Amino acid sequence: MTKKYNVAIVGATGAVGEQLRYLLAHSKIPYDQVRLLASKRSAGQELTVGAKMYKVEELTKDSFKNIDIAFFSAGGERSLEFAPIAVKAGAIVVDNTSAFRMDENTPLVVPEVNPEALDSHKGLIANPNCSTIQMVMALQPIYEAFGLKRVIVSTYQAVSGAGARAVEEMKNQFRCLLNEEPIEVPHILPTGGDKKHYQMAFNVLAQIDKFQDNHYTFEEMKMTNETKKIMGLPNLPVSATCVRVPVIKGHSESVYIEVEKEDVTIEAIQKVLAQAPNVLVQDDILEQIYPQPIQAVNRKETFVGRIRKDLDVKTGFHLWVVSDNLWKGAAYNSIEIAEAMIQRGLI
Amino acid sequence: MTKKYNVAIVGATGAVGEQLRYLLAHSKIPYDQVRLLASKRSAGQELTVGAKMYKVEELTKDSFKNIDIAFFSAGGERSLEFAPIAVKAGAIVVDNTSAFRMDENTPLVVPEVNPEALDSHKGLIANPNCSTIQMVMALQPIYEAFGLKRVIVSTYQAVSGAGARAVEEMKNQFRCLLNEEPIEVPHILPTGGDKKHYQMAFNVLAQIDKFQDNHYTFEEMKMTNETKKIMGLPNLPVSATCVRVPVIKGHSESVYIEVEKEDVTIEAIQKVLAQAPNVLVQDDILEQIYPQPIQAVNRKETFVGRIRKDLDVKTGFHLWVVSDNLWKGAAYNSIEIAEAMIQRGLI
Repeated sequence: MTKKYNVAIVGATGAVGEQLRYLLAHSKIPYDQVRLLASKRSAGQELTVGAKMYKVEELTKDSFKNIDIAFFSAGGERSLEFAPIAVKAGAIVVDNTSAFRMDENTPLVVPEVNPEALDSHKGLIANPNCSTIQMVMALQPIYEAFGLKRVIVSTYQAVSGAGARAVEEMKNQFRCLLNEEPIEVPHILPTGGDKKHYQMAFNVLAQIDKFQDNHYTFEEMKMTNETKKIMGLPNLPVSATCVRVPVIKGHSESVYIEVEKEDVTIEAIQKVLAQAPNVLVQDDILEQIYPQPIQAVNRKETFVGRIRKDLDVKTGFHLWVVSDNLWKGAAYNSIEIAEAMIQRGLI
Repeated sequence: MTKKYNVAIVGATGAVGEQLRYLLAHSKIPYDQVRLLASKRSAGQELTVGAKMYKVEELTKDSFKNIDIAFFSAGGERSLEFAPIAVKAGAIVVDNTSAFRMDENTPLVVPEVNPEALDSHKGLIANPNCSTIQMVMALQPIYEAFGLKRVIVSTYQAVSGAGARAVEEMKNQFRCLLNEEPIEVPHILPTGGDKKHYQMAFNVLAQIDKFQDNHYTFEEMKMTNETKKIMGLPNLPVSATCVRVPVIKGHSESVYIEVEKEDVTIEAIQKVLAQAPNVLVQDDILEQIYPQPIQAVNRKETFVGRIRKDLDVKTGFHLWVVSDNLWKGAAYNSIEIAEAMIQRGLI
């Protein structure tokens, strides 16, 4: 008889929580009990996982008794407080916040890229930032085949990355503007925790998360630091510009790379990416085929297209990388981490 | 007595034509007669320039009698056919299409950058591509102060760049999607003349204009070739990724540069840009101030912010450049070209 696992979802009512509930039901994880956890405010709501209805419970210190796998997606502070409690209670935690990602004792894992990092886990595995995951999905196969000298990325990130309430804020702005009415005062975007908030509808905001002293945002530094950690390349130069665009779901990225090998062709990069797990090449200029966020919604793959040789730098290439930020960028990658833990006999 | 000029606007009913009519009335051009020209279909419409009403006339071979300055913004084919006729009739043509931009006998001018190119004109001056204009507005002062080794740009371009009908197509898509209704089959975006058309609302399209054999789009190659020509730097490496986003007006650009000089600081770049004509620096991370397309609408300036040192390359910097694509990117630059011609005694 296969072992069955009791699973908790912390932040079950949020944007990622919703996807986790859906994807858990469709996963390879043989689960038995499910505990949906959220703030006191959301407790009592009834939500489904597969065909079964569950009552949302308030997250407390006692929530993790008999839990084997706990998915955390309720903000960094909640993870900092409750993830160690869950680990102590015997659960494996897959944490979708940034709280533990750069902690040297915590594996930061994209299962297609660095599954071996799971083996040294101490009960907690960090799920990388959404924009980082889809980028390393494209970079790793290229790195393995041709080496990698540097990365410059500009992102086009969907509003669902800022949560379900941010999406509602943007939609309401669109409704007002299309009726030629003034919008309500924004209070979430670009970043819930910051001082000022701006209109997102028909606009582009070059800020995701808060600014750091070096003039980069925290989101931009996540892309730099997490990419190095996941790929095991601490000296790889990575600089990012992270930008929010009026899209609901699906992050896009304009990625410039320089490879080590000389004489690499577009076709060689297409071939290497086409063979990589969960990467789909959409790159046909005659048929106007290139990745689009609306086509990536509710898809597990990372889509790559617009592959071009730089016009001047012989080892330079440009890529266009798109993926569902709530699936491969969050919930699906977390589910995959748990699946890989089971497969490797770690749970 | 100041000389007065008779002015024609070809394409007076279009998105750029509308801005040309407004900006002409607010310009330093002492104009007398105004002739608004368009296709037969639009002839008879009444439109204003300043306080005065004008009847739109059909564009014909005889439209340019007694015209001193003719602004063309009715598509490349119309310019190819009628601009030479206007020049022959004695008019100075300021052409806003791509028809003559790379012609070696045609000056391609951003008045703040290369006004001296006007002096060798042969009756026709080309107005550069919108995305190129705002980029060279930011690059030229940096180049003059610190030299320039390379440029990589990813754009976030507004839909008005594809014309007024494209904006209507996108708005209708938003109306449908917000009502949870299916959208009408797209027939304009990403690019009117191409085979396939895609949803723009809540989406990002990594195609502007048609694909070339080298896998770049024509828009991307415009940014490369026009930047070199305007800045007089035929060997400057420039590679672009041009992307349409669900914004009505205002192009944004994530620009990576490498300068020649060592030890250049963020503050030094801010200072040089702040002193440049028609450039405004919006770059205050403590106050969350950075350029936004909705704030650039109906502004003549090019806005620059998010100025950061690359994390690895010592001479590398990242900039965020925003401007109104129909003003500085088209109509206002054309008006400025005519003003500069008058000021230099060339008309």
